[in-house]
Amino acid sequence: MNRFMDRAETMVAESLDGFVAAHADLLMFCPERKCVRRRVMTPGKVGLISGGGAGHEPMHIGFVGTGMLDAACTGHIFSSPTPDQIVTAITQADTGAGCLLIVKNYDGDVMNFEMAAEMAAADHDIAVLLVGDDISDTHAKPSDRRGVAGTVLVEKLLGAAAETGMPLSALLSLGQALATRIFSIGVALRGASVPELRRPTFALSPGEMEVGIGIHGEPGCSRQRFEGAEATARMMCEHILAAAGSSLSGQGLLFINGFGATPPSELYLMHGHVRRILGEAGISVERSLVGTFATSLDMAGLSATLALLTDAEQALWDAAVHTAALRWS
Amino acid sequence: MNRFMDRAETMVAESLDGFVAAHADLLMFCPERKCVRRRVMTPGKVGLISGGGAGHEPMHIGFVGTGMLDAACTGHIFSSPTPDQIVTAITQADTGAGCLLIVKNYDGDVMNFEMAAEMAAADHDIAVLLVGDDISDTHAKPSDRRGVAGTVLVEKLLGAAAETGMPLSALLSLGQALATRIFSIGVALRGASVPELRRPTFALSPGEMEVGIGIHGEPGCSRQRFEGAEATARMMCEHILAAAGSSLSGQGLLFINGFGATPPSELYLMHGHVRRILGEAGISVERSLVGTFATSLDMAGLSATLALLTDAEQALWDAAVHTAALRWS
Repeated sequence: MNRFMDRAETMVAESLDGFVAAHADLLMFCPERKCVRRRVMTPGKVGLISGGGAGHEPMHIGFVGTGMLDAACTGHIFSSPTPDQIVTAITQADTGAGCLLIVKNYDGDVMNFEMAAEMAAADHDIAVLLVGDDISDTHAKPSDRRGVAGTVLVEKLLGAAAETGMPLSALLSLGQALATRIFSIGVALRGASVPELRRPTFALSPGEMEVGIGIHGEPGCSRQRFEGAEATARMMCEHILAAAGSSLSGQGLLFINGFGATPPSELYLMHGHVRRILGEAGISVERSLVGTFATSLDMAGLSATLALLTDAEQALWDAAVHTAALRWS
Repeated sequence: MNRFMDRAETMVAESLDGFVAAHADLLMFCPERKCVRRRVMTPGKVGLISGGGAGHEPMHIGFVGTGMLDAACTGHIFSSPTPDQIVTAITQADTGAGCLLIVKNYDGDVMNFEMAAEMAAADHDIAVLLVGDDISDTHAKPSDRRGVAGTVLVEKLLGAAAETGMPLSALLSLGQALATRIFSIGVALRGASVPELRRPTFALSPGEMEVGIGIHGEPGCSRQRFEGAEATARMMCEHILAAAGSSLSGQGLLFINGFGATPPSELYLMHGHVRRILGEAGISVERSLVGTFATSLDMAGLSATLALLTDAEQALWDAAVHTAALRWS
């Protein structure tokens, strides 16, 4: 299928151009366009940095702004930004209190962010937080879980905490605690088409659904028959509840995230199903986020994320945020 | 292709359920679920009401809240709400200063909203504003233009004006003036699939693009070869500039709207192209809106809308808004 681009080689740069132009009131390019940063930094606040491959927009560039990230790096499609890009982001975002790098748990991202942290360590206080919220692979150890849409929640919560003046070590601890209480699972009805190929990276027959999907075009953990929205919601909730296990307490934040080609009407329908089924299991959903925030190009599908928050964390969620993709006060 | 629903007959109601549950802090169902309304009305403010078929979410329900609409009615897929629904919305939203009905210019919507206005006229001051911003059909008289994504801008601007206490007659005049300076054109790379059919309402060959598309599954004004993003942006700008003609002054607000299945990365890329081409024509884009706001189910495509605003209207755009889909302060 066609898409709104010209050449695969220029797509990422042109999309970034349009993004920065649209939101020039709050953000700007770093030197040599190596990253996107807040227009105005807050001296003495810990700098929050994230990044990843292109094709996940608005993640992470859409979360740069007051109450969330200070800078974000974008690589090529589904490829980590380079250590050089990340070091530039650190240089831009460190106003004296150090930087926290929020990294989705994927090999390429982890390698490059850790390398950048090492390169910058002589001049900057750096901590690296890995987020692994994808609980679809029931055989994976928690430390092997991939970072997917739940990363958005971590960035919002830590962003609000950083605005209060929380120091680097405390932000890292908070992030590590949060990451154990955020559970995501994704499903797809059609795979992502990478610009070079112009066809889905995996093919589903009519009536099939890919379960436990990542966000880099790779197939999921299993392929199942699509039995409708409610059955899908029930299956997703079973995975989430099993993973949450004994930690099932706290205020529920339910996040339904579209992967790029699933319209709001379907996301809201699924939100209603998942919310009801979680409620039957005793989980009260106190906060909701529904929309297209962590995409996989034009994949048709969605993920459900449950975060179990303390009262203090819920207050961080409610705190003001002003970014391109999340904005409230 | 599959979609996240169970039965076509229940899809709209289930999606509305999920929507209202997700945003219960700011809105609620009207009696018998005939419409969605603000949880708290402002006594003495003119009530702003819109509505239309389902399948366009988040339009219009996503724009109910402070600074925008007081109530919104949703019909069946691509079908107008009934006069009975609209009368209920009027009863709910009229707090003493009357109601303005903001109606996209489509026969079914116009008929039902005007019938509702007549039914309610004995007990309420009512004015009806028709919005026709689709300039793709160069043979259509301005009064015959269809109402498409530009309606979102009208709802935001009038919503802000209503919050300042502007009376009904002045809101109608402002809306009529605005509607002559808002120009939209849409293109599609794949048609919408209505739930009953599960296939696109029109078929495009690879390499084809539908130009001048509406939002109800109908084909557009012409079918062209898709020549890439930049050529598409240029063609869209030519239409917009021709329609704007002599009224080409004021502050430009550029709105790139996704129709449901087009991801943010592509919307931003097109924003960049359209913005640059308008700039070459002397139009400075002072405000931007990029996202999926007025959809046609899962259609792959987008529209570009240029609004030419006075300084006072730009201030209305900047004014605080708190709805499910648009939120700033």
